[in-house]
Amino acid sequence: MTAAAGMDSPSSSPVRGTPLLKDELDIVIPTIRNLDFLEMWRPFFQPYHLIVVQDGDPSKTIRVPEGFDYELYNRNDIKRILGPKAACISFKDSACRCFGYMVSKKKYIYTIDDDCFVAKDPSGKEIDALEQHISNLLTPSTPYFFNTLYDPYREGTDFVRGYPFSLREGTPTVVSHGLWLNIPDYDAPTQLVKPRERNTRYVDAVLTIPRGTLFPMCGMNLAFDRELIGSAMYFGLMGDGQPIGRYDDMWAGWCIKVICDHLRLGVKTGLPYIWHSKASNPFVNFKKEYKGIFWQEELIPFFQTVVLPKDCTTVQKCYIELSKQVREKLGKIDPYFTKLADAMVTWIEAWEELNPPGTAAEVVNGSSNGK
Amino acid sequence: MTAAAGMDSPSSSPVRGTPLLKDELDIVIPTIRNLDFLEMWRPFFQPYHLIVVQDGDPSKTIRVPEGFDYELYNRNDIKRILGPKAACISFKDSACRCFGYMVSKKKYIYTIDDDCFVAKDPSGKEIDALEQHISNLLTPSTPYFFNTLYDPYREGTDFVRGYPFSLREGTPTVVSHGLWLNIPDYDAPTQLVKPRERNTRYVDAVLTIPRGTLFPMCGMNLAFDRELIGSAMYFGLMGDGQPIGRYDDMWAGWCIKVICDHLRLGVKTGLPYIWHSKASNPFVNFKKEYKGIFWQEELIPFFQTVVLPKDCTTVQKCYIELSKQVREKLGKIDPYFTKLADAMVTWIEAWEELNPPGTAAEVVNGSSNGK
Repeated sequence: MTAAAGMDSPSSSPVRGTPLLKDELDIVIPTIRNLDFLEMWRPFFQPYHLIVVQDGDPSKTIRVPEGFDYELYNRNDIKRILGPKAACISFKDSACRCFGYMVSKKKYIYTIDDDCFVAKDPSGKEIDALEQHISNLLTPSTPYFFNTLYDPYREGTDFVRGYPFSLREGTPTVVSHGLWLNIPDYDAPTQLVKPRERNTRYVDAVLTIPRGTLFPMCGMNLAFDRELIGSAMYFGLMGDGQPIGRYDDMWAGWCIKVICDHLRLGVKTGLPYIWHSKASNPFVNFKKEYKGIFWQEELIPFFQTVVLPKDCTTVQKCYIELSKQVREKLGKIDPYFTKLADAMVTWIEAWEELNPPGTAAEVVNGSSNGK
Repeated sequence: MTAAAGMDSPSSSPVRGTPLLKDELDIVIPTIRNLDFLEMWRPFFQPYHLIVVQDGDPSKTIRVPEGFDYELYNRNDIKRILGPKAACISFKDSACRCFGYMVSKKKYIYTIDDDCFVAKDPSGKEIDALEQHISNLLTPSTPYFFNTLYDPYREGTDFVRGYPFSLREGTPTVVSHGLWLNIPDYDAPTQLVKPRERNTRYVDAVLTIPRGTLFPMCGMNLAFDRELIGSAMYFGLMGDGQPIGRYDDMWAGWCIKVICDHLRLGVKTGLPYIWHSKASNPFVNFKKEYKGIFWQEELIPFFQTVVLPKDCTTVQKCYIELSKQVREKLGKIDPYFTKLADAMVTWIEAWEELNPPGTAAEVVNGSSNGK
């Protein structure tokens, strides 16, 4: 392991007394460059442990600013640790980040891209994205009925008139999907059509994605409960040697959503914002996305109609079942999906190898709000 | 008819040149008092025609500020116009407003309560609620996939990466559900528990309620396409002689949502805000809501599982079918629901009498985005 442990995080964080979940959360960063972007995040991230997944040339040295506690894995490390199973981890694509989820030993993960900076709220205050994600994860979700005043667990709000009382306990939140100011997360066609569009609207809301509804999950500002959903947070086969890119997080988002719906777990979206600074090249993106643009038209109906059998009571069982249905129903579209279905199985095998039973809680269907 | 036509609306509206949909939208106001609240709305409402539904004692005179063009109906008018069918219109409850939807001849309705005032956006500018509702109604909805940057048709935003292109045309929006600053729309138990809570959060978003998801629709700041969904916008039997109150808009919201889902029509919620000034008495509300609090626990599962057959291709057909299922499945809970099912049928009969075929477009299943 190329891991170079930095200084221990100082307890004198300039922004708060005791950082929330300090010993229960890892920050996973996929990168190909020096992590200078961390300087801006220092007041917020320094108390936490970082897992850096180095993409591309493993002989290159990635510089991490002083004072951060981190471990780093390059391609050679991944191969050494996973052996032949390393094939399920994408190369030359930020999808490689999911290796970090697998080697973490913490309950929670926050993952962020190295072109994401600290955003400001409308009052000009710097946004502590991590704190908001943690707050999203530590309060329940409400996937069974829409609350028109959004997250009812937020200070100063509640369930409105007409919200059934039996549903107010909510379900455990396992994913918190944050947003982006400045450069919007558009696909290549939209980037090409609207090259100058910037997201300037700060929407002060967090909400649960309702049960049965799919959403486009972006991986660049995302937190989740690794223990409860981590083993489904696989970013697929993208980049080097694969026919598509830029669908890694989307794939993971569709998979986790159908599993969350089945296991009665919740997914929130909205706050916090980060400042997304660098638009990727739309022509390069267009090439990566090309096949995905067609395929997603068949993938969405597939995920909208997936049914997981009742005996799929853990995330792993759900994921293996999903891989079977991917093979059977999507394999016809392109041989890529058969390869992806294989990789999904390999991912679970690798996950179980690195996370043997007993080290993390197995989710039981209806753990907090059983049918 | 007690209708007293006011001055014609001046074309010199102080806020805009040509008011949007000036001749295609009626404002429906249920009330028991003089409509002084309209003074504050004058710059926004004066160009439009008002339909005032006077609740309570019909001998009382309701004063409407000068310069507004309006017609007014009291209980005697309703009885004279509907005859025995007047029984389907609630008395001593703001549910009586739906009579206004029935007598209107316009394509769109905006309905507002007389304790609702003009709110301000965070910059201090007065919010033209009607203009925002119209904008919500004139842009499509996206009920089949969640867009994480909210309404993609708003200026400065779009569909994000991963949103299937085949779904970007959207579906016609037929309901725009606005929100409230200041006094939140809480049920009596929440009012009792949090008497001082005020809604101070301005969430700058409009979003589509996803297909298959129910929501608590509040009737005090609501716009809809009368031609496309009006005949399902029945506020039920509430108030005088009925065992419950304060579920009129909720009932309508559940009914219209399952019908919109079936007919592929869209419902939006979010902006615009109005300023809700007067909290109603929580003890009075508690009495009105008491049975509803139990009943809604059975109503929600009912509406969540309602299936409308394929041959229900118009709103009226859907509504009659729904009335049958209400009678059959909810009639067991309490005789009230049998009476309500009868009233639903009467409502449609009265609607068709006042709106004979040919006067309004019949909605055909999949009118813009057929299956």
